[in-house]
Amino acid sequence: MCQLLGMNANTPTDVMFSFTGLATRADEHKDGFGIAFFEDRGLRHFIDHQSARVSPVARLVRDYPIHSDIVIAHIRKATQGRVALENSHPFVRELWGRYWVFAHNGDLKGFEPRLHGAFRPVGDTDSERAFCWLMQELAKAHAGVPSVEELSCTLRELLPRPAAHGTFNMLLSNGVALWAHGTTQLWSLQRRHPFGPARLADEDLSVDFAALTTPRDRVALVATEPLTAGEDWQPFAPGEMRVFVGGDLVAGGPGRG
Amino acid sequence: MCQLLGMNANTPTDVMFSFTGLATRADEHKDGFGIAFFEDRGLRHFIDHQSARVSPVARLVRDYPIHSDIVIAHIRKATQGRVALENSHPFVRELWGRYWVFAHNGDLKGFEPRLHGAFRPVGDTDSERAFCWLMQELAKAHAGVPSVEELSCTLRELLPRPAAHGTFNMLLSNGVALWAHGTTQLWSLQRRHPFGPARLADEDLSVDFAALTTPRDRVALVATEPLTAGEDWQPFAPGEMRVFVGGDLVAGGPGRG
Repeated sequence: MCQLLGMNANTPTDVMFSFTGLATRADEHKDGFGIAFFEDRGLRHFIDHQSARVSPVARLVRDYPIHSDIVIAHIRKATQGRVALENSHPFVRELWGRYWVFAHNGDLKGFEPRLHGAFRPVGDTDSERAFCWLMQELAKAHAGVPSVEELSCTLRELLPRPAAHGTFNMLLSNGVALWAHGTTQLWSLQRRHPFGPARLADEDLSVDFAALTTPRDRVALVATEPLTAGEDWQPFAPGEMRVFVGGDLVAGGPGRG
Repeated sequence: MCQLLGMNANTPTDVMFSFTGLATRADEHKDGFGIAFFEDRGLRHFIDHQSARVSPVARLVRDYPIHSDIVIAHIRKATQGRVALENSHPFVRELWGRYWVFAHNGDLKGFEPRLHGAFRPVGDTDSERAFCWLMQELAKAHAGVPSVEELSCTLRELLPRPAAHGTFNMLLSNGVALWAHGTTQLWSLQRRHPFGPARLADEDLSVDFAALTTPRDRVALVATEPLTAGEDWQPFAPGEMRVFVGGDLVAGGPGRG
C-alpha cells in the first residue's frame, strides 16, 4: 500500500509511472490520486478525485514517458476533507518564483495554525492547511531566496509543529530539492549503476526505470513501503527529515546529521 | 487562428475540447498550449510546450469529457520568453483560498512593474509578469474576500496599465466569474436554448456542445475569432472588459455599462 512516492534523479529521467496495480484490487484508495512532475522550473500537475482504476488521467500518466528530475505522487484515502478535486494531493503553490509541491500521508488532529499570510487552503483538508502554514512560515523566515541548506534548517524547525498533531509523513519540493519527513512509515532508497530490476512496484504503483543504464545515472526514491525486495531501503526514524538533491541524499538518513 | 478560448456555463457542462484542427496544419502555434478546467473550487490544469499536434496531453484533453463550468484554453505562439513548460499558458496562482487562472494573447513591451508582493513569475514571459502584477494589486486593493462586482471594479482600473504597453487580450477566472479583456481581437457569444450547431470550430480548436440540450442550459464563449458563422458573435471594443457569471454576461458588452 503505497500512498506517497517521491523520486529525485540527477538528470531528467525517462520514467514511466503507473497506478495500474490498482486495477486488480478492491475499493481501497478510491478517493483520488495525483502526481506532479518538475521539468526544470516548469511543472506538470495531474490530479483526479476518481479512483486511478477508472481515471483517464491515470491512463495518461501510464502512457506518458516523463522526462523529469523530481516527481511527487500520492494515492488518497480520505481521512479528513470531502472526496473532491480540490482535496486531491499533491498541492501546488508558488513562492520566490518557484512552484512548490506538497503531498501528505496521515491525519492531523486539531492543527489549526493562524494563516495570516499569502497562502490559504482552497479545499478543506488538514494536509493543505499544513502546507499553507509551511509556505507562510518559510516566506516569513527568509528575506531573500534561501539556499537548500537554509530551507532545510528552517524546515527542521517547522516540521515538528504539525507532526505533534498526528501522523505527518510528507514530501515537499521546489524543483531543486526533495524534502521527505517521516513519522510512522516512510522509506528511501538510493540507486546507482549497476542498477537492480528496472521495474519497481507494489500493488498500487509501479515505476519503470528501464532508461536508467549509464554509470552516471543516480536516482533516489522515497515511498510509504519498499517497492523492491533485496535492495537497501532505509526506514525513516520517527520525526526524521531527509533531503535529496541531484539524486543524492544530502542531509538526514542513516548515520548522517 | 484561435489563441484564446474561454467558456462559462451555468452548470457543470460535459464539453469536449479538441486541438486536433492543428493536426492538418503547418508549424504555426507549435510553441505549446494549455487548458484549465474549474470543477467547483478544484482545478485541472493541462499544459504542454510541445505542439498540440504531437502532445499526449492534447490527446487526453480530446478524449476527456470535461465536466466544468469555467474553462480557459490557450494556444501559444512564442513572442517573449523561451519555449518551455514554465512559459505555457494558462498560469495559475492562489488568492483568498481560490485558484486564479490567466491566459494572454499579445505582446507587452516594457511592462516591468515592481513586484513586491506574494506573486512572482516562475518563467520569463511578459504575460506571467502581468498576471503576477494583477494578483498583487487585487490582493492589495481588498482587505477581505471581495465580490465579483468589487473585483470587476478593481480590474477595470488595473487592466489599462498593462494594456498601455501593447496587445492585451486576456482571460482571467477565479472559478466564480470569467473576466475577458480585449484590445485588438476578441469576440464573445452567448448561447441559449434552442442551440445552434453542437460543434464549434476554427482550424485550431473545436468545442463539442452536444450535451447542451435543455431549455435551462446557458453558455458564454469568448474567443480570438468567431468559431461559427451565422451566430451573434460580438467583437470587443478596444480596452473593453466583459464579465461572465453562470453563463451570462453581467458587465460590459454591447449596450451595457
